[in-house]
Amino acid sequence: MRTSIATVSVSGTLAEKLTAIAAAGFDGIELFENDLLASPLSPEEVRLRAADLGLTIDLYQPFRDFEAMPADSLSAGMRRAERKFRLMERLGADLLLVCSNVSPAAIDSDDLAADQLRSLASLAAEYGIRIAYEALAWGRHVDDYLHAWRIVRQAGHPNLGVCLDSFHILSRGSDPIGIEAIPGEKIFFLQLADAPLLAMDVLQWSRHYRCFPGQGMLDVAGLVGHALRAGYAGPLSLEVFNDVFRQADARRTALDGMRSLIALDVPEPVVPSGFAFAELAAADPGPLGEMLTALGFARTGDQLWEQGAARIVVREAPGKAALAAIGLESPDPDASMARAEALRAGVVPGERAIAAPDGTRITFRPPASPGPVTGHVVEIDHVALTQPWHHFDGAALFYRAVLALTPQPSLEVPDPYGLLRSRAMNAGPVRVVLNITQVQGLPSQHIALACDDLVATARALPPGLLLPIPANYHDDLDARYDLPPDYRDLGILYDRDEHGEFLHLYTVTLGHVFFELVQRIGGYRGYGAVNAPVRLAVQHALAAGEGQVPPQ
Amino acid sequence: MRTSIATVSVSGTLAEKLTAIAAAGFDGIELFENDLLASPLSPEEVRLRAADLGLTIDLYQPFRDFEAMPADSLSAGMRRAERKFRLMERLGADLLLVCSNVSPAAIDSDDLAADQLRSLASLAAEYGIRIAYEALAWGRHVDDYLHAWRIVRQAGHPNLGVCLDSFHILSRGSDPIGIEAIPGEKIFFLQLADAPLLAMDVLQWSRHYRCFPGQGMLDVAGLVGHALRAGYAGPLSLEVFNDVFRQADARRTALDGMRSLIALDVPEPVVPSGFAFAELAAADPGPLGEMLTALGFARTGDQLWEQGAARIVVREAPGKAALAAIGLESPDPDASMARAEALRAGVVPGERAIAAPDGTRITFRPPASPGPVTGHVVEIDHVALTQPWHHFDGAALFYRAVLALTPQPSLEVPDPYGLLRSRAMNAGPVRVVLNITQVQGLPSQHIALACDDLVATARALPPGLLLPIPANYHDDLDARYDLPPDYRDLGILYDRDEHGEFLHLYTVTLGHVFFELVQRIGGYRGYGAVNAPVRLAVQHALAAGEGQVPPQ
Repeated sequence: MRTSIATVSVSGTLAEKLTAIAAAGFDGIELFENDLLASPLSPEEVRLRAADLGLTIDLYQPFRDFEAMPADSLSAGMRRAERKFRLMERLGADLLLVCSNVSPAAIDSDDLAADQLRSLASLAAEYGIRIAYEALAWGRHVDDYLHAWRIVRQAGHPNLGVCLDSFHILSRGSDPIGIEAIPGEKIFFLQLADAPLLAMDVLQWSRHYRCFPGQGMLDVAGLVGHALRAGYAGPLSLEVFNDVFRQADARRTALDGMRSLIALDVPEPVVPSGFAFAELAAADPGPLGEMLTALGFARTGDQLWEQGAARIVVREAPGKAALAAIGLESPDPDASMARAEALRAGVVPGERAIAAPDGTRITFRPPASPGPVTGHVVEIDHVALTQPWHHFDGAALFYRAVLALTPQPSLEVPDPYGLLRSRAMNAGPVRVVLNITQVQGLPSQHIALACDDLVATARALPPGLLLPIPANYHDDLDARYDLPPDYRDLGILYDRDEHGEFLHLYTVTLGHVFFELVQRIGGYRGYGAVNAPVRLAVQHALAAGEGQVPPQ
Repeated sequence: MRTSIATVSVSGTLAEKLTAIAAAGFDGIELFENDLLASPLSPEEVRLRAADLGLTIDLYQPFRDFEAMPADSLSAGMRRAERKFRLMERLGADLLLVCSNVSPAAIDSDDLAADQLRSLASLAAEYGIRIAYEALAWGRHVDDYLHAWRIVRQAGHPNLGVCLDSFHILSRGSDPIGIEAIPGEKIFFLQLADAPLLAMDVLQWSRHYRCFPGQGMLDVAGLVGHALRAGYAGPLSLEVFNDVFRQADARRTALDGMRSLIALDVPEPVVPSGFAFAELAAADPGPLGEMLTALGFARTGDQLWEQGAARIVVREAPGKAALAAIGLESPDPDASMARAEALRAGVVPGERAIAAPDGTRITFRPPASPGPVTGHVVEIDHVALTQPWHHFDGAALFYRAVLALTPQPSLEVPDPYGLLRSRAMNAGPVRVVLNITQVQGLPSQHIALACDDLVATARALPPGLLLPIPANYHDDLDARYDLPPDYRDLGILYDRDEHGEFLHLYTVTLGHVFFELVQRIGGYRGYGAVNAPVRLAVQHALAAGEGQVPPQ
């Protein structure tokens, strides 16, 4: 399958966009008109530059507000089109996107639309150009892809077909199965975009929140399946309008886009079955070892600490303590690694490991038997990683596509100095939480350890190890629930959902990382996010040196 | 009128919030529960801290999901309430906000709601506490303020009244005139928030996009008028949930909030009648003078350059060339200055000038007669100022409240490296454009000069003065319009709206500032924003030293 991407999807000047798109391995581009208008490159220079980079110009877009206009507007529209056809000749592009009319002057007449599009296609044919007609979700009279297809069929011109766009189709809830009713050769182009589910005006949703397939919640893969079954043989082309991508590094965005297309086409994922280990690195590993000992871990190797199935590697490396690597148990580590490489994950030189976009190294290991039972810690419950805010969608795609984790809905957590966004990704016992924040200077990296008895665990801990929790928090818990007094005495935080209960505790921070101790009772599915604002406020206060809150 | 603000409206720890709120001159606070829960301060310490700062705790909030619940839930709700009443005793707070139930378990029965709220009010009375019942716009069965009032009236308890919130009332399109049907003494509390008009889910809109009165598009002042006519005598209290305010400096936010309340109550504004001057400052004023000469200005004083009614002051000051001050013609400069001071504008020490939030100095002058006609420049058309992105709402409020300019809708302008937000504010010929961007390093400060003949102006300019416009831009203009060839030859940019046409040109940048030359034909109302992406792309290319685009 050929791959393509609209130039509007990545940041930069047109020249920078082309370079980034080619570097990510795309076959072609959709040239977005505004990118050309603002460029000092002549159309001939753009053509040459793209060819030098191995890129074809698959589509020129958009051409707006043409069809179903009063007769006296037709000649102006045809004149405008002819100028664009001449431009496309200079660019070496032979497919023009015409999107459905949004003008208040447009007439609600399929006959008129078909007539005028036929005229346009006839003129286009003289230039060897074809027209792909697309229903915008907010088109004035044509907002459904099957409506656009009816008009194209009625027009009956070989140079006129439809352009399908997954966002326009799925955002308005249309059933994409109707695509299979369109002859494949009349689907001139297929544009792909995903989006988070947002209850907002569809135009604003489209212009600001689109993302690459697999980053949002639309079934883009299903739609592609329908198009392929219809016989579509053109490129899979990404067209994303996203406020964050506009600011982000173009090469990284283009690579994310390429990964999203590969993920539509790779074999079934190898689902990891558990955490093999988590690796911490620090210039001075001493305090980490002391904390692990205090948490009941046994040192079972030079760098290895074990308790039940929880394994923590502590490695000496420059810098403050930080989470450096994750080992995942895989039923087939070689297949996991091969899939990661196919999805363009960066391979760490000299290691059988890949690098996540946030720099975390990830390795795959066969399942191992649990270590010694030295306390109440049973296994690693989850690992929380911090992402730069403009890498969030890319990270979600990486963990979903490369590691076969299923993304959960994003949550927003109020921090005293901003809003933190948090998204859990999981596959059975493998749970990774991605946190982003624009708030500087606070660690949200942590390893959460599942315990079989948190009260007993807490009782056995030495003083000073835990984050002190304000008494006001437990006063509120007492008002809401009838809980054992142990929770207040031991500083245990609490949450419940319809499936069960969640008890947790946080340690103080070492360098950039801290531990969480958790106990899931019943089938509780969350991560205690409701308590995160309290944790963040206390961590800020400690980081600012406002002094310890006296433990209760 | 007493002033109050919910602690959730500003950033920081509870202690930092209290300090910032007191510094802005508020009389009291609404204590937001989560701020207390995350605080190491005990309720008694919060009470003391507030009292020391001269702040009363006017409201404790919110108490959720209480009323209209099945009978077996009542005792848990009453138990929860009693804990909160005891907490409020410790805080010295005597008013509790109860917001309408959003629980799926809530029963659609006003009788039940009234009964249970009466029980709650009876218990509250034992503690000397009153209950303010508020209809959330997304309440399960009660989402309208008059519905809440009917329930309160039916409950008929002296310790039960309503809380009115301008966002909840205006966001759902309710007519606020019904407030006048509520006896003033039964309006226990009045919360004020404005918001931009957004077509999105009201809960998301409320939680992320609220702003202070005058920063958005809701008629908060009108609603306050209804409440005062009803006899409301409690505080005007701000309650804003805003993602940007959460990150911004608490003192600045609190001052903006105080300004928004003062603006509800100050006398009629003194509307400026024109630009008296714009002042540029540079360590080396030479190049600015040369550019002004090239633009046809006459040097009429040591630091003054004039052409028609356009006056530019060029002052020597450290740093690169920048826009430093604006003089506005006022029919009553003393009244303008007094109003600005009443609205807490910072007064520049030793000058009859105020400082805008972006640092621009502003002075008021009596109208003056125009200077010499030395070319085609007639007057200053508009001044564009750059704002840090997290100061945008504050700046909009400043220019609206202090300078009596009317805000126009925000526009979004694609820049190659991000999205730029632009909002024009105007009063007749006084037009100020506020630009924000997260894109670093590009000037958007400029002075636009109105010309009576832009073609003639452009012909007379020396080479190298203007920003080179890509030929692709004019190819597109030619496709869309039938324009004089002069426009292409002279590099003139073009726009039209339903009222008229707009011709404009940009100079190259000197330091941080550039000039625009504009001609409005007919009643064109915009600022050529459609062409801004082209300007930005060329400015980026020049700033990156990618070389001059050859002039056409």
